[in-house]
Amino acid sequence: MDIYVDNAATTAMSDTALAAMLPCFQQDYGNPSSLHSPGQRAAEKLAEARSIFARGLHARPEEITFTSGGSEADNQALRSAAALGARKGKRHIVSTKFEHHAILHTLQALEKEGFQVTLLDIPTDGVVTAEAVAAAIRPDTCLVTVMFANNEIGTVQPIPEIGGLCREKGVLFHTDAVQAAGHLPIDVTAMDIDLLSLSAHKFHGPKGVGVLYARKGVPLVNVIYGGAQERGKRAGTENIPGICGAAAAFDEACAHMEENAVRLTALRDKLIAGLMAIPHTVLNGDAVRRLPGNVNVCFEGIEGESLLLKLDERGIAASSGSACTSGSLDPSHVLLALGRPHEVAHGSLRLSLSSYNTTEEVDYILEVLPGIVAYLRDISPVWDELETGRRPHLI
Amino acid sequence: MDIYVDNAATTAMSDTALAAMLPCFQQDYGNPSSLHSPGQRAAEKLAEARSIFARGLHARPEEITFTSGGSEADNQALRSAAALGARKGKRHIVSTKFEHHAILHTLQALEKEGFQVTLLDIPTDGVVTAEAVAAAIRPDTCLVTVMFANNEIGTVQPIPEIGGLCREKGVLFHTDAVQAAGHLPIDVTAMDIDLLSLSAHKFHGPKGVGVLYARKGVPLVNVIYGGAQERGKRAGTENIPGICGAAAAFDEACAHMEENAVRLTALRDKLIAGLMAIPHTVLNGDAVRRLPGNVNVCFEGIEGESLLLKLDERGIAASSGSACTSGSLDPSHVLLALGRPHEVAHGSLRLSLSSYNTTEEVDYILEVLPGIVAYLRDISPVWDELETGRRPHLI
Repeated sequence: MDIYVDNAATTAMSDTALAAMLPCFQQDYGNPSSLHSPGQRAAEKLAEARSIFARGLHARPEEITFTSGGSEADNQALRSAAALGARKGKRHIVSTKFEHHAILHTLQALEKEGFQVTLLDIPTDGVVTAEAVAAAIRPDTCLVTVMFANNEIGTVQPIPEIGGLCREKGVLFHTDAVQAAGHLPIDVTAMDIDLLSLSAHKFHGPKGVGVLYARKGVPLVNVIYGGAQERGKRAGTENIPGICGAAAAFDEACAHMEENAVRLTALRDKLIAGLMAIPHTVLNGDAVRRLPGNVNVCFEGIEGESLLLKLDERGIAASSGSACTSGSLDPSHVLLALGRPHEVAHGSLRLSLSSYNTTEEVDYILEVLPGIVAYLRDISPVWDELETGRRPHLI
Repeated sequence: MDIYVDNAATTAMSDTALAAMLPCFQQDYGNPSSLHSPGQRAAEKLAEARSIFARGLHARPEEITFTSGGSEADNQALRSAAALGARKGKRHIVSTKFEHHAILHTLQALEKEGFQVTLLDIPTDGVVTAEAVAAAIRPDTCLVTVMFANNEIGTVQPIPEIGGLCREKGVLFHTDAVQAAGHLPIDVTAMDIDLLSLSAHKFHGPKGVGVLYARKGVPLVNVIYGGAQERGKRAGTENIPGICGAAAAFDEACAHMEENAVRLTALRDKLIAGLMAIPHTVLNGDAVRRLPGNVNVCFEGIEGESLLLKLDERGIAASSGSACTSGSLDPSHVLLALGRPHEVAHGSLRLSLSSYNTTEEVDYILEVLPGIVAYLRDISPVWDELETGRRPHLI
């Protein structure tokens, strides 16, 4: 059995998304900037895709900018807010310690350019409070950026509350909604969101397409300079096949969001219950305020990497955390921010479900996983020390 | 008959490129950063694509960075060379007046950040000389950026000569090869090129994929910060389907380059001869040192836009110049740089052929175009003034 439970890393494209892309490759392949009919047909497709995202986010089409992905959208959102802040002499940004690196590394770059950044600590439940955000806001704060849902532990942040307080204090609010878009309802108007990033390949759309929502009146600065595409704010011939696939996938995800969430929540909770029955296992992040498809646990005494390889041998594609940092030997910055000790953070497992996963797959995972954990603990010198009391259990 | 002769704007994807992409959408859709088998299969595809570009450009795989397109690659190339220059106190850049806006607008941004830019004039034949470049280089020059072939008039620049002199003078040399890659032989080693940008959708590959070649030892700076993809220099989940399609298209284009060039050159020259038979028509750019598929002429006394619409009615998709600037009412900055008066530059027509165009299509264009030009001149008050001598002919 081949089971893919790494949907937070990337997803398979849906038939709907693929069907929307296919005609754009060899038939309607025009450049939307061209005046001729093939170009104008492409321009119509682009406008339609923009409307779909606007509708799904409760925004206006002119507030939607297509980018090459979530990372680019994050970069552009932060740089735009920072540039606007700098013009007003405001050079302080509030964020959190468990943001995606597209946020954290952009913030580091901004720090080198003279901005000050406050990164909020993460409570053990993985949910930042609006109060903590409020307390960090200063008179010179130009931006608050807090992710909608964490990419590793799946915890959903109190976005409407944070949005409301930012609006009240006159501070721009950006949310990296890469993990949430297509999975949770998003209403940028009701939630007082000024800037939002999303990525199509996280909800069965194509890779290489992101969206930056910027509320009307929030001027964007270019990350990529060049042609006049995207109202002059994002240069480069628009990736029409990708954009059409992204819009189709988003439309589909929004249409089935509730039923998918109900089904996935049940699968998720079944997985969590089964994994928590393994001794010395801890759930990372709040059990309820988390993405419908996210399971993230730490097994004491084992290495996450060995666990992944053993699961892979059994046909299960899972991860220990973010794919974007999997090359690194350091433990997850998210789990460390959550207060997990290094030794424990190393034994993490993320199972991220999509609507394509089945009950049978979950049953299979629960069938094989306890044995793998037991095997790895058997051969682990650390576990031996833990069991014989030479080293105290941490969880 | 539907004839697409706007291949400099974008191309139809080849069957080969599409075939390389299709398995990546729903089967091998893994994230190459993931440790599991689907991820590792994606990583292998990524490595293979990198090797294909390296081979085609006579570079090393580790010198190839995938971007979201030619514009991003241009931005990153210029910013990287500028950052390196700044560290050495060198803040002068040499370029030309007829570069693509991805270059010109990035240079403008760099000027605001304290760099000085010298833009070379363009000789009437549309070919910059190495001597002019040499004369513009100063002790504080950190970068020369000259496009391989112009996107509007198709003239091919003396890249090996410019590369050689830059290497000799210890100045980095970047070339925007977006129009040349896949159409003309490129050897970054023999041509002394330090940085090169290309875009897949200009040679029957997918939109949304570019390549930045950076010679080993030329450090890149990030345009997009985030995850550790592309050796930490370009964040964001890699667009594996697009990258595979791009590599397949490039491989195919390189394999058939010579035969395509011979065929296209014949078609191009037939078109040029036919168009030049229309009175008061001028060819833009050198007749020989131009891309095999590029035709660009000005017809005095008519508006390029009206001409395009009339051609479109007859099923011919052409352009007046760059698609990236077609929203603008200003005449082409390329034709102005070439010394064409405003009135003449407004009457431009670019026909850009690909290997998919046929002799029959060229014959059809030559059959209908003279009549359209004559018709537009008939209804043009300007032409009336030109013909009655109230206004002197400029060409």
